[in-house]
Parts: sequence; C-alpha cells; structure tokens
Amino acid sequence: MVEPRRQRFDAPLALRSGASIAGYELVYETYGTLNAARSNAVLVCHALNAGHHVAGVYADRPDELGWWDNMVGPGKPLDTERFFVVGVNNLGSCVGSTGPMSTNPATGRPWGPDFPVLTVEDWVHAQARLADALGIERFAAVMGGSLGGMQALAWTTLYPQRVAHCVAVATAPKLSAQNIAFNEVARRAILTDPEFHGGRFYDHGVVPARGLQVARMIGHITYLSDDAMGEKFGRALRRHATDTVLRNDYRFTFDVEFEIESYLRYQGEKFSSYFDANTYLLITRALDYFDPALAHGGDLARALAPAQADFLVVSFTTDWRFAPARSREIVEALLANGRRVTYAEVDAPHGHDAFLLDDPQYMAAMRAWFERVHARVQDGGAAREALPSQEGAR
Amino acid sequence: MVEPRRQRFDAPLALRSGASIAGYELVYETYGTLNAARSNAVLVCHALNAGHHVAGVYADRPDELGWWDNMVGPGKPLDTERFFVVGVNNLGSCVGSTGPMSTNPATGRPWGPDFPVLTVEDWVHAQARLADALGIERFAAVMGGSLGGMQALAWTTLYPQRVAHCVAVATAPKLSAQNIAFNEVARRAILTDPEFHGGRFYDHGVVPARGLQVARMIGHITYLSDDAMGEKFGRALRRHATDTVLRNDYRFTFDVEFEIESYLRYQGEKFSSYFDANTYLLITRALDYFDPALAHGGDLARALAPAQADFLVVSFTTDWRFAPARSREIVEALLANGRRVTYAEVDAPHGHDAFLLDDPQYMAAMRAWFERVHARVQDGGAAREALPSQEGAR
Repeated sequence: MVEPRRQRFDAPLALRSGASIAGYELVYETYGTLNAARSNAVLVCHALNAGHHVAGVYADRPDELGWWDNMVGPGKPLDTERFFVVGVNNLGSCVGSTGPMSTNPATGRPWGPDFPVLTVEDWVHAQARLADALGIERFAAVMGGSLGGMQALAWTTLYPQRVAHCVAVATAPKLSAQNIAFNEVARRAILTDPEFHGGRFYDHGVVPARGLQVARMIGHITYLSDDAMGEKFGRALRRHATDTVLRNDYRFTFDVEFEIESYLRYQGEKFSSYFDANTYLLITRALDYFDPALAHGGDLARALAPAQADFLVVSFTTDWRFAPARSREIVEALLANGRRVTYAEVDAPHGHDAFLLDDPQYMAAMRAWFERVHARVQDGGAAREALPSQEGAR
Repeated sequence: MVEPRRQRFDAPLALRSGASIAGYELVYETYGTLNAARSNAVLVCHALNAGHHVAGVYADRPDELGWWDNMVGPGKPLDTERFFVVGVNNLGSCVGSTGPMSTNPATGRPWGPDFPVLTVEDWVHAQARLADALGIERFAAVMGGSLGGMQALAWTTLYPQRVAHCVAVATAPKLSAQNIAFNEVARRAILTDPEFHGGRFYDHGVVPARGLQVARMIGHITYLSDDAMGEKFGRALRRHATDTVLRNDYRFTFDVEFEIESYLRYQGEKFSSYFDANTYLLITRALDYFDPALAHGGDLARALAPAQADFLVVSFTTDWRFAPARSREIVEALLANGRRVTYAEVDAPHGHDAFLLDDPQYMAAMRAWFERVHARVQDGGAAREALPSQEGAR
C-alpha cells in the first residue's frame, strides 16, 4: 500500500534551453524507511510513459501495480526492507507533476505548447531539489531503464557527490539517427493531427487521439524484438466476434486481419485515452537532446569524467532500440576514467521491453548488485568511500 | 528514350479474394528488341512506389530516369542490347495502370475504396496476360527486388513453364510480425487522417497528405540501415535559412532540429504530393498477404515445388527489413526441391535500399548471372531445357 505525495518548489528553476520555470510541483512516492544515517535512499527514474508509481498498489486501486513492482518491494531485488526507495514523476509529465496540462500562472490556462522544452539534465536538477526536501544528501543508488538510465547517468556527472552507485539499464549515451527518426515520425503524427490545434487542444475539448495512437504504435514496435513479436504474434489471424470457426484464410480488408494489428491498435487506443500529447512531444525531445558528450567534442569519457559512483550497466541482446553496443560505449568511457563498472549483457529474447520483465539472469544480477550496495550501506562504506566528509558536504 | 504504352484487357480477371475485376489496363515500357525466337524477354517487377518506368528517360522529361536505370540499359548488368526488357505497372497502382483513382465503370466515379483488394498472385496473373499480348510465351528471366522479388517468386510457381530464370533480390517468403506492424502503422496513419474520407477523398478535392507523409517516413526508416542513417545524418543539426553560422547547439523546439528530421519530412512531403492513399493501402496489404507456404501448412519447399526455373537470390547484410536469413529460407526451400540456385549475400552498408544502389559486388553478381542467361538464350538452351516443345505449349 503506497500513497503519492506532492512537493511544491517555489524558487525558479533555470533550464538548459535558457528559459526558466517559476515554480513547480513534483509528485513522488516512497517505499521502505529512510535509516538514521539517511544513507539507504535509492532514486528510481522513469522512462517515457511511466511515473512516480514504481511499486505497490493504492488503497483505492488494488489492481494498479507500480511499473517496476517486480524489481522494487519487500524481498525483491531492490529490497524495500533494506532501502528507502523514491519514485518521482518528472517535470513536464501528465500523470501528476507540473506539466503542459497544468495551469500556467501567467495566463490562468493550461501551459500547452508554452511549457518550456526540457532536457534530461533539467529533470535531474528538479529531482535534486526533491532530494533536498526529503533530507537525502547522497543516494545509495540512482537507477533507471531506457530514458530513466539516461537520468541516472546524468546524476553521476551533475551531482557526483550525491550518487554512490548508478544503475543504468537498457540505455544509450545518446540517440542514433534512427532513434531520432522514430521519435520524429511519432511527433509528426501528433503535430499534424488536426485535433492537436497547435498544442491548445485543451481549449477545444478534444485530444489528438489519432496522432497519439500512431505514435504509440511506432513506439511499441521498437520496444519488442523482431523475434519476440514473431513468437508472440507471428502471422496469426485475428478471430473476430462473428467468426464461428478459427480462420485460416484472409478477409481481404484493411481492418484488423492479423493479431499483431489488433495488439498495436489496442495499445495505441489505450495510450491515447490517458497520455497528454504535449508531454509526449516534450519527452521524446528530451530523449533526442540527451548527448552528454556534445559539450566535450563528442568525447564520452571526458563527459563522464566527473562521475564518482560505482556503476552497474545492463543491456539485453535483442534490444535493437538501445543495443548492447550502446551500453558498451558507456562502459568503455567509464573504464577510461578508472571507474568501477559491472556490466551485464543479458541474453533475453524480449527486446527493449526486457528491462521491465522478469528475466532470471537480469533479476539475479540486480539482486546481487543491491546486496553489495546494502553491505556498503550497512558498514557506512558507501558514504565514506567517495565522500571525505559527509557532514561537511551537507 | 522510351515511351510508355498501354494495353487493355477486357476479359474479367478472377482475384484471390474471390472478387473479380471486369477489365483493366496495364501501362508498360519495353527496352531492347525481342529476338526472332522470342526467347530474350525479361520481366522486371516493381516494388511499393515504383512502376513501369524502369530505365531510360522520356523525350519530354529528360530528368526522369527509370528507377532501375543503373541495372537496366545498354551495357548495364541487364543489357538491353541483348535482352528485351519489359517494365509493367501493377494493377491497383496510381502511376498509370487501372487502380483506385481510375473510373469504376459501374458508377462513373473513381473506384476509391471499392477497388478490390489484391495479392501478389493477382499481379502475376495480370502480368501474364500482358506477356500473352506481347507474344512472350516464356521469359528468359523474371526479376524484382523487395515486393518485386515476391512477384518473381510467384511467377515460378504459378507459371513454371514460362520462367527460365528467376532473380529475387532483397525479398522474403512472407512478412514477419514486425514487417506487418510497420505496414499497419502506416495504414492507420492514412485511414485515420480526416482527409481520407473513407477512401473517397477524390470527391472532396483533398488528399490525406498528413497520413501519407507519416506512412512514407515510417517506410524510409525501414529502408535504411541504422549504420547508413548514422553515417549519412548522424546527429547533425539542420542549418536554417536564418542561421549565419553553423549551429552547434539546439533550438529547443519541435520543428526541424536534426538533419534526419529534415530528410524524412522532405521524403514524406514529396511522396504525399504524388502517391495515392488507396494504392498505398492496397500495396502494403498485398505485402502482408504474400505467404505462398500458407496453403501448404507452412512448408515453403512444398509451396515452391512447382518451380522449374534456375534462381539467383540476393540479399544484403545490413537489410533489416528483409534480412539475409529471409533469403536463406528461400534458398533452402529451393535446394530441397533440387533447383539450381545461386545465392549472393552482399556485404553492403545501405540496408534494404541497397537493391536500388550501385554496390560493385552486387552489380558484378547481377552482370555475371545475366551473362549466363544470355549464353543460354544464344544457344536456345534456356527455352529447350525446361520446355520440351515450345511450339506445342504456345
């Protein structure tokens, strides 16, 4: 049983774009208990369509499991009987924290397209203020998968003294041209939907559902491996309500014919019923923009040089969105800086989605890693090793 | 210098769906001279957005090179000084042959969504009638890339006596779930565009340009390899007309930021200015439906058993749309039937698009293959070997 909480920040936050936001709220949840030394906190950063509800259920919605509930909880790899876990919804989101659907104090209407464009680094700075508010000077670990992994990496360079361990799963040091291309197609589908109304669809009582559906369908293709999709759906024909027998021939229409079509449409429709189009644009742009090496002439090792954490980097063999080679770039850059890095390349069939699933090898690697983090927390080592004077830094 | 011609067929054509089309016209072009024995004809089948204009230019449009002009022409791998090459636009298309934009004789208005759903096999039967009209009993070769390769394969089983050689490039024996998924997203973008009007947009004086743009952008991503896209575009930022210096930082907008975005938008806009949305639906569905093994319990070797041709199968290492493994399935099925097969797996960086490009290894393989076909045509062998009595069969 968990409960979301809300934290207001009134000081303006300067953003990477040069703009700033006057004030904002972040919604977050916590699991487990912060120890007396405040040394057992773990921050979980979310990816595109998740939020602060990482684990557990709400009293009034017992079916709504947190998105990483298989990873986080009592006795789970990230054990909430040992760690104090924080899940936070990012700025610009549509599931609780201040975002384009929130009221712009300057106009009294929804921000919509006027919400500032955000970067991964902006999110990290906003999260750091939440850590301040919670009295967490230093996280035992910051972790995330996919876009969440990018935030975890950014934490280690923006706040090197505040991260003892970093867990970056199924992520990349920057998007490839192909990654950007998929984002761009999704954005075009939204931006050109007549019901987008330049981002002011709230005023028209509509949502650009068609654009969001197409965007989500594209996303889903990139989350699954070709093989996993083949195994799950193959070329199986969809049975319709009016069918009295299993079909083994085509209908010859453009309506749902194959199971894979039915699956994608369902995912698209579900997504468009709750996700905000302006948020989708913001988050995909933050993905595009993430490139810590850009300011260092493309040298990732130099970009990661400030990091003081120990790292666990995990990739999945069939992930073609952020392939293992992308994780290896991160590992090599960290090793070039003399960092301690554990790298797990997990042979899992599910593609990018594997980071959310229960692969035993993956779960075992996470569990073993957090055993180590826990041992360090226990003897105070995690805090001591990289931070000469914890009190002084506070 | 070439000229398109038009052939009318008045006998109804029964279609795989159970429907039939009362009559139709095919637009085609020919290059080179049919020899006296009528044994040097090569049919070139086209893929999604191409047509009958395979090679050369038109007198009034000297810039409009045929889509396979690097492959077909005097002295080229498919040498039109030796072969009589036929390029034909498929039924259902929008660049000349009868299709959804044509007038439905039953209503006096464009067919639009009432145009019958087509399959690869339907195209082959329609093409066979063109061969009859041209007096070609037997092709020295039928060839094609991608969807064109599927037609070439279908020719060998539907008309085994009429194909001496088959060249199937960058193709697959059926689409995977992922292939279908990409097609479905493209179709959804078109079908949900408000200007599609249920396929009757002609009556409204509009075209579903936004849907077509998104569809084409998705297609383009699958035509290029991740590496080729990275090499060509990488994360390069787009220089805008108002820029006085090269940019090295972001603009923080959802408008064009990266070169890859500019490229995809340009391709999408160009495509939507000339391609018919109903045709796009038809052609992608024909791709989905192609699965010769379906009627044989999934056994591709049994499906290809009727074939009598010699085969050249070509794949490209970086083609992730129709990967080499898909070509190898075809090769294995043909070998299981004791067919003579040459297989070239070309190490080219360009992805699926490679079949249209000038890779030297690829061009050399095609040239060598057609040398052999030519030698057989010369000594009459191609006709004799598989067809005991050519005159009798006529």
